Amino acid sequence: MEIRFSDRANGLKASEIRELLKLTEMPEIISFAGGLPAKELFPIEKIKEVMLEVMDKDGTAALQYGPTEGYKPLREIVATERMSTAHMNLTADDVIITTGSQQGLEFSAKLFLNKGDTVICESPSYLGAINAFKAYEPRFVEVEMDENGMIMSELEKALKDNPDAKMIYTIPDFQNPTGITLSDDRRKKIAELASEYKIPVIEDNPYGELIYEGTVHPAIKSFDKEGWVVFLGTFSKTFTPGLRLGWICASPEILNKYVLIKQGADLQSSSLDQRIAAAFMQKYDLNEHIEKIRDVYGKRRTLMLESMDKYFPEGVKHTNPYGGLFTWVELRDDLDAALIMEECIKENVAYVPGGSFFPNSARKNFFRVNYSCMPEEKIVEGIKRLGKVLSMYY
Amino acid sequence: MEIRFSDRANGLKASEIRELLKLTEMPEIISFAGGLPAKELFPIEKIKEVMLEVMDKDGTAALQYGPTEGYKPLREIVATERMSTAHMNLTADDVIITTGSQQGLEFSAKLFLNKGDTVICESPSYLGAINAFKAYEPRFVEVEMDENGMIMSELEKALKDNPDAKMIYTIPDFQNPTGITLSDDRRKKIAELASEYKIPVIEDNPYGELIYEGTVHPAIKSFDKEGWVVFLGTFSKTFTPGLRLGWICASPEILNKYVLIKQGADLQSSSLDQRIAAAFMQKYDLNEHIEKIRDVYGKRRTLMLESMDKYFPEGVKHTNPYGGLFTWVELRDDLDAALIMEECIKENVAYVPGGSFFPNSARKNFFRVNYSCMPEEKIVEGIKRLGKVLSMYY
Repeated sequence: MEIRFSDRANGLKASEIRELLKLTEMPEIISFAGGLPAKELFPIEKIKEVMLEVMDKDGTAALQYGPTEGYKPLREIVATERMSTAHMNLTADDVIITTGSQQGLEFSAKLFLNKGDTVICESPSYLGAINAFKAYEPRFVEVEMDENGMIMSELEKALKDNPDAKMIYTIPDFQNPTGITLSDDRRKKIAELASEYKIPVIEDNPYGELIYEGTVHPAIKSFDKEGWVVFLGTFSKTFTPGLRLGWICASPEILNKYVLIKQGADLQSSSLDQRIAAAFMQKYDLNEHIEKIRDVYGKRRTLMLESMDKYFPEGVKHTNPYGGLFTWVELRDDLDAALIMEECIKENVAYVPGGSFFPNSARKNFFRVNYSCMPEEKIVEGIKRLGKVLSMYY
Repeated sequence: MEIRFSDRANGLKASEIRELLKLTEMPEIISFAGGLPAKELFPIEKIKEVMLEVMDKDGTAALQYGPTEGYKPLREIVATERMSTAHMNLTADDVIITTGSQQGLEFSAKLFLNKGDTVICESPSYLGAINAFKAYEPRFVEVEMDENGMIMSELEKALKDNPDAKMIYTIPDFQNPTGITLSDDRRKKIAELASEYKIPVIEDNPYGELIYEGTVHPAIKSFDKEGWVVFLGTFSKTFTPGLRLGWICASPEILNKYVLIKQGADLQSSSLDQRIAAAFMQKYDLNEHIEKIRDVYGKRRTLMLESMDKYFPEGVKHTNPYGGLFTWVELRDDLDAALIMEECIKENVAYVPGGSFFPNSARKNFFRVNYSCMPEEKIVEGIKRLGKVLSMYY
């Protein structure tokens, strides 16, 4: 049977992360490979409570079709509560609800990319975004980062060298995979460059509120005077991922196009999930819940970084994130994290090899480690095991 | 601000149906424009009950990420219970869960269509599918129908004339918008033609179980020996649309590609929604619930067709569906249903003008009427009003 798939479908490959997650599901493995939020922090009883209230008050509407843009009270909450922590002053009309922020990524590629167009992104960048974009057959231009995020002179050079670039994709806060955060002055600069080069910026911000030191950074979009920045948010990391609720904030002309894309893609996100989330946030303070998450994740982060310093051989480098879910480990140039992973599996510990986070270059001497969903004793034990394996190479 | 959208996004237009729905939301209007299921039939109390059981038994998993393919017990239920009514014998591995069957439509275009490729479809066809496909910039070839669905000699001619055709799209049961059903011998023939011409068939089947006379037809896929047919199903019409749950059945090679597309599109459908649906169907008999829907919709259908015969002027034709949600009205060649709609709004009654259901030709003398979500007295009153307006033209 010779099936003629589209060119884009022929190019699709299984995500290394999803395949690895299957491999690392064995109970004996301490897996730092995933990016799951800690399930023990889900506010199950409160959700159960508001769920019943939604069904009693408005069960019919919670089960019926609703508007493509999303449930208005939830859009309102996103605009006035979530986006204000990112230093923005919005209304429900500036927001639409998506089926997780992954959907916002896919829509962005669909909205801006013709085949062969250029996407400018961080080097490395989020694997799930790279794969979603690849379905629209773009070229990628990677911009180097330092400890303050994308290097602005490099970004400007990329913009000059690639006049066909159609979007800049960035994760400014506690980036996936590196955990690096863009400094505030560079946020302002990116917004200015977007206006100057007339190019949309896709600001992907799933982790901004998970900050363990200081307060939430202003969004790039908060510096955006002309409407070039599209902000993608999600409740997956601050509430629950199983409800599949994210959002897009953009200027009206752009947001209207996203609505049309959403209509074709799945008509709307779950009416029930949207109403449960809204009812929860009307009744309870999500900020209080986020405080709890910060406290737990922040401790795990500190313990992991300390354990790495203690158990990793000298010469292995790691980033020092002050928020988010991940840290990024750099090995000697001649080492291949994917090959070393095979040794790790034998020692019952796992991470994600970094190669596929580089859309072009596939640099092999990096790996990503997650610290959000693991109890503290397992973090120490897992890093010990990792250290033992790495010592074979140092 | 000159935003450079992708070519596909420049081509996107607001769906006539969604815009009309807004217009017809005024309470004084009797609107036959929508396609909503009757909300008074939603099994709210039972859903509330199983919702609590899901949260008590497995709340954490219901709020956490889950597999892209969908919740296994729900896939199992789809395979063994829903697909068996369509004369198929499948397992969970043959099925993935989607965010409504609209998502299955969008994915199908993404999977099979390069820019400029040909889609063969019924004339007219489902507006939501046409719009989802248009984002991938195909050409459409429309195949004429008679009272038994697509005319096979016309389909074969279209296949011969268009060797670049990449998929056949069809709604075999109680088609949207016409209400026409494909005869069983033609189902077998389409499956044979698919093998002969090596072309995938997208069998979109949201209404098959809503049959008011006789038993559910065998799916085209039930005649598919080589795996060319992709079956798209949904719980939106037989359970609730607000939970956003549909499914795709396809042969392994094709289904694996859909999984990769799903991963990029939204990672997975709502964990909570999937578990609620599965728990409902484990505890209660969905067939019994569907019987209730059939009973109510069947009566409404009969009443609407009788009212049309009574109140429409002679010369106005309509189809006689024995299932589904819609009937299709044909006016004299020289009349324009979109213009007449303006008169209808003045009389507080509404339908969907048929033009946009034709991807190429925009034939103007048709309109679509829904009978599922309207109490009986309003059906009679609405058809009376429509008859009054139509009498001005006959």
